[in-house]
Amino acid sequence: MMQETFGKALYGWGSNDAAVPKTGIKLVIIGGVAGGASAAARARRLDETCEIVLLQSGPDVSFASCGMPYFIGGECTDRDQMAVQTPESLRKRFNIDVHVNTRVTKIDTDNKTVTATDETQPGSQTTIAYDELVLAVGSEPLKPPIPGIGRKGLFALRNLQDMDAIVEWLNDMPNKCSTCSEYGNKVPLHAVVAGAGFVGLEMVEQLMRRGLEVTVVEMLPQVLGPLDVEMAAIIEDDLKAKGVNVVTGDGIQEFLPFNGNEHGDDPSTVVKLKSGTLLPPAQITILGMGVRPDTKVVAEAGIECTPRGHIVVNDYLQTNKASVWAAGDAIEVLNPIVGNGDKWAVPLAGPANRQGRMIADNIFGGEKKMRKFKGTYAASVVRVFELIGACVGMNEKMLSAKQLPFASVHVHPGSHAGYFPGAKSVNFKLLFHPTTGQIWGAQAVGEEGVEKRIDVISTAMQGNLTVEDLAELELCYAPPVGSAKDPVNIAGMAALNVLEGLVEQVDWKELKKAASLPGVVILDVRNPGEIEKSGPLIEGCNAKTINIPLDNLRARVGEIPADTERIIVSCASGQRAYYACRILMQTQSAKVENLSGAFKTFSRVSERV
Amino acid sequence: MMQETFGKALYGWGSNDAAVPKTGIKLVIIGGVAGGASAAARARRLDETCEIVLLQSGPDVSFASCGMPYFIGGECTDRDQMAVQTPESLRKRFNIDVHVNTRVTKIDTDNKTVTATDETQPGSQTTIAYDELVLAVGSEPLKPPIPGIGRKGLFALRNLQDMDAIVEWLNDMPNKCSTCSEYGNKVPLHAVVAGAGFVGLEMVEQLMRRGLEVTVVEMLPQVLGPLDVEMAAIIEDDLKAKGVNVVTGDGIQEFLPFNGNEHGDDPSTVVKLKSGTLLPPAQITILGMGVRPDTKVVAEAGIECTPRGHIVVNDYLQTNKASVWAAGDAIEVLNPIVGNGDKWAVPLAGPANRQGRMIADNIFGGEKKMRKFKGTYAASVVRVFELIGACVGMNEKMLSAKQLPFASVHVHPGSHAGYFPGAKSVNFKLLFHPTTGQIWGAQAVGEEGVEKRIDVISTAMQGNLTVEDLAELELCYAPPVGSAKDPVNIAGMAALNVLEGLVEQVDWKELKKAASLPGVVILDVRNPGEIEKSGPLIEGCNAKTINIPLDNLRARVGEIPADTERIIVSCASGQRAYYACRILMQTQSAKVENLSGAFKTFSRVSERV
Repeated sequence: MMQETFGKALYGWGSNDAAVPKTGIKLVIIGGVAGGASAAARARRLDETCEIVLLQSGPDVSFASCGMPYFIGGECTDRDQMAVQTPESLRKRFNIDVHVNTRVTKIDTDNKTVTATDETQPGSQTTIAYDELVLAVGSEPLKPPIPGIGRKGLFALRNLQDMDAIVEWLNDMPNKCSTCSEYGNKVPLHAVVAGAGFVGLEMVEQLMRRGLEVTVVEMLPQVLGPLDVEMAAIIEDDLKAKGVNVVTGDGIQEFLPFNGNEHGDDPSTVVKLKSGTLLPPAQITILGMGVRPDTKVVAEAGIECTPRGHIVVNDYLQTNKASVWAAGDAIEVLNPIVGNGDKWAVPLAGPANRQGRMIADNIFGGEKKMRKFKGTYAASVVRVFELIGACVGMNEKMLSAKQLPFASVHVHPGSHAGYFPGAKSVNFKLLFHPTTGQIWGAQAVGEEGVEKRIDVISTAMQGNLTVEDLAELELCYAPPVGSAKDPVNIAGMAALNVLEGLVEQVDWKELKKAASLPGVVILDVRNPGEIEKSGPLIEGCNAKTINIPLDNLRARVGEIPADTERIIVSCASGQRAYYACRILMQTQSAKVENLSGAFKTFSRVSERV
Repeated sequence: MMQETFGKALYGWGSNDAAVPKTGIKLVIIGGVAGGASAAARARRLDETCEIVLLQSGPDVSFASCGMPYFIGGECTDRDQMAVQTPESLRKRFNIDVHVNTRVTKIDTDNKTVTATDETQPGSQTTIAYDELVLAVGSEPLKPPIPGIGRKGLFALRNLQDMDAIVEWLNDMPNKCSTCSEYGNKVPLHAVVAGAGFVGLEMVEQLMRRGLEVTVVEMLPQVLGPLDVEMAAIIEDDLKAKGVNVVTGDGIQEFLPFNGNEHGDDPSTVVKLKSGTLLPPAQITILGMGVRPDTKVVAEAGIECTPRGHIVVNDYLQTNKASVWAAGDAIEVLNPIVGNGDKWAVPLAGPANRQGRMIADNIFGGEKKMRKFKGTYAASVVRVFELIGACVGMNEKMLSAKQLPFASVHVHPGSHAGYFPGAKSVNFKLLFHPTTGQIWGAQAVGEEGVEKRIDVISTAMQGNLTVEDLAELELCYAPPVGSAKDPVNIAGMAALNVLEGLVEQVDWKELKKAASLPGVVILDVRNPGEIEKSGPLIEGCNAKTINIPLDNLRARVGEIPADTERIIVSCASGQRAYYACRILMQTQSAKVENLSGAFKTFSRVSERV
């Protein structure tokens, strides 16, 4: 007798009786990494009787994509662990029929078949029937048609074969250049990383770890596009301090061979930038110029894709073709932050995994209670040397592009109680709707306790909490791991003060212009010793900068000229300046504004405005 | 001209015009630590004109209560930093009139006065009028009337004076016992900590850090009452492994002088337990037996308190007396998890700070938009040596006491991607409503990434998310800091599987009993090598334990006797057992159950059932 109490509560899962839908079906999954492997494993758990066929180009399934930079750099050392599952382990544990080195060349949704070729046997062709088809085709690295992009020594990093090729190249590299008297025997050798996104900067760190000198080239005017410029600048400054040659706002014009016939067999590449600059010859170049969905075959099958090539799915992750589902990097998902059906593409491992699992639920759960994919919040994190950068939701650039109303606060609290040793600054930016207090997004950069604050904000956004809720949010506190007022609380309180009109702010981008206007006074409420040590807030503008330490402000407020029309207040991190604003707003007739993020934010980017 | 655009949007705050309520009032605050200091500072920011009087017994205000154990142990070394603010700094920065060494002896709510005595001038008396009164009186250490509790060398730890006295005693201790040939010159000396709560265990660690041998005595059958026993056992086992003498389930009968007239001036104490056991003589004893609200004077004033002495407040933190507000350890707050007006007392620094701030908002914001205190979720964390223990919400003991329906899952995922070096087990327990999926609470113990998961659960609870939302929750992932499936996701997925009937569970407490019943088979799906290394799941019961590794289960399922009525499946951490359950539930007629938490949970507490 099958178990009666199970399975029927919600789904009718788990037993062999007639109530279970689609038992014994044939499920074909294209792509066996995050989304595909999750769909396959969950499908098997839900139904022992179905046939599961997983098709994967290249020799590996379910590999540790995100770990590849660390293996290249030697921080991860076990090659076996880079393959989370193997075809054999998936077969043994989940009874999945895995076909590697299998590239799908055609999908026929009318006849419910896919046609594939065995990559090890060119010209071979197999046709496989399906009852349900899952597209987890992923993305492929962008390779723009830059002259010379096909040169030796240039690598993208999509799969373990790429990873192994890079490692092999790096290991052999000193030998390759042995004929080059000019630089070949010079250590360190030089690497160029094209693209300063998350993976690009991970590669920068790992190549440095291997002893190379590294140049990173980014077309955007900043590294780490998902962060706003003043937040990314913290990491950019650190990269420069570590000796990385960071080139932003410049593109790659051409990959040239290293000049000189005497080095005929030298595979080094000279990167020529759009600005005309020639980078020093690089013995390896990593192409981290973004990804695009690998959906050519999908689109050819009449499965709806966006102009950028992402598969269009409904709330249940179904495509426009019956029995065809899609998950992972290749799909476009709801942007629940913007709402109103707004969509975006967010190629991240976490959502891909959960989408794959959800598709299995929806195939085997029956139509009564299909799960809806509510969208993606784009919570992400990168470690670059000692710094962690994390973000979630919409950044200022995205909000501006969509013309959505927003305000932001910058705070710099400690990662844990200040009196307990080892606290580090959590540089935190919170973006919110200026009247409703809806959280648009957040960014944090620092050495400790960074991603946990973004996880909290991400969770808060998924629970529709507002900045007022953040001010009141209850989080764990003990001196070694937090503060009674957590950075999230502090950001929430600062935002609430703005929202409720307790303080008005000047953004760092506006300071120099504002400071040059007549009637404006910059009031720096730091102590003189701090200014001496860290430097003045702003130099070379017409405004009169006055220094009155906060604790003397009530007594010395008369030093602010009587004809002042506007006082912009700053301190080190913004807290004391806010206190000063509150005093001034209640006692002075001039307009009073707080410099958002104060010296810590402004000084980092003052040369960019 | 005052600023027009500010302040009026929501509150009318910030300007001097007539719309601002209660300007120029006299605010008296009793208690100047977390809640009181926060109320005072926020009040000043909201209103430059009010008079703020802060009354504090003892010489210190706004000190780092939570840091005191670390200063005693020497992990925090700067005595100045233990005083976050001083009377002088509060006066300078916030224009607050601070009276230290001032103990309030009477509150007269009819005449709106408080009477206080200067502790340095016994018999002195001052009466202070107030317009608004904030009670932030805090809690005092419980000192049960145990014979000998007044002995020298016994210390509670409420304030910096206590802290300094403990440090002085510890520094002088070897000298005190110099006449004792029997043990006095023996190093290490011995400390007893009475009470194995958060502060008790922090003290255990810090006393060990100073080189003492430590016994900790706890009346409850476990350490760390806020955790359930199987979770607390992880920390208890670690304490024992570090050489701490952990006594649970026993109380203190008497504090006896060290026996022997030859040691007439030896201040050592022999702790006699209720069981009759005499502990080795202790040169210092720390009393960490909990706290109670310091509300004698409050209750005498007719301000409503609960039978346990906590001040009763409404949603706005107002007491039953007009213009009297209360915050912090001494108040009872809503328990929003249970709902229906259920209340509890949660003495934590974070909520105290925010309550103090909210009271200032409600006093100076006017009645139009008073803020409501929504209650406390009891998110808390403690570090004990290398382990972090954290929890939020209701534990199993609380749920059972309130007869609330609940289910739980135990999972043990890694703190970050398994292939990246250094990942540690996050031992995680999630409690939830068995039909609605409401989150009741969570507990986590481990070396890394522990409190961040509890912060996420706490935020999820505050956003009314369910276990289904946890399964889908989007959190930051990069190999050094997380996993594509975060421990929170994994716990949510496990809970959802239970909720939806995909698997049924046996709790660790029920295993031994179940295993002794006829027709029951224990199926261990670990590999033989694992069993050899870690030991069998259960010994000495009648049930037949079968070992079939998961990957062989489909082939070897016939080894389970045909007449089996019930199969209880286990592995190392529960994941493989769940996979096995799914196979068995679809192919076997016997009832199939997963051992919640599997070997990792059960083996830790198997001797307790």
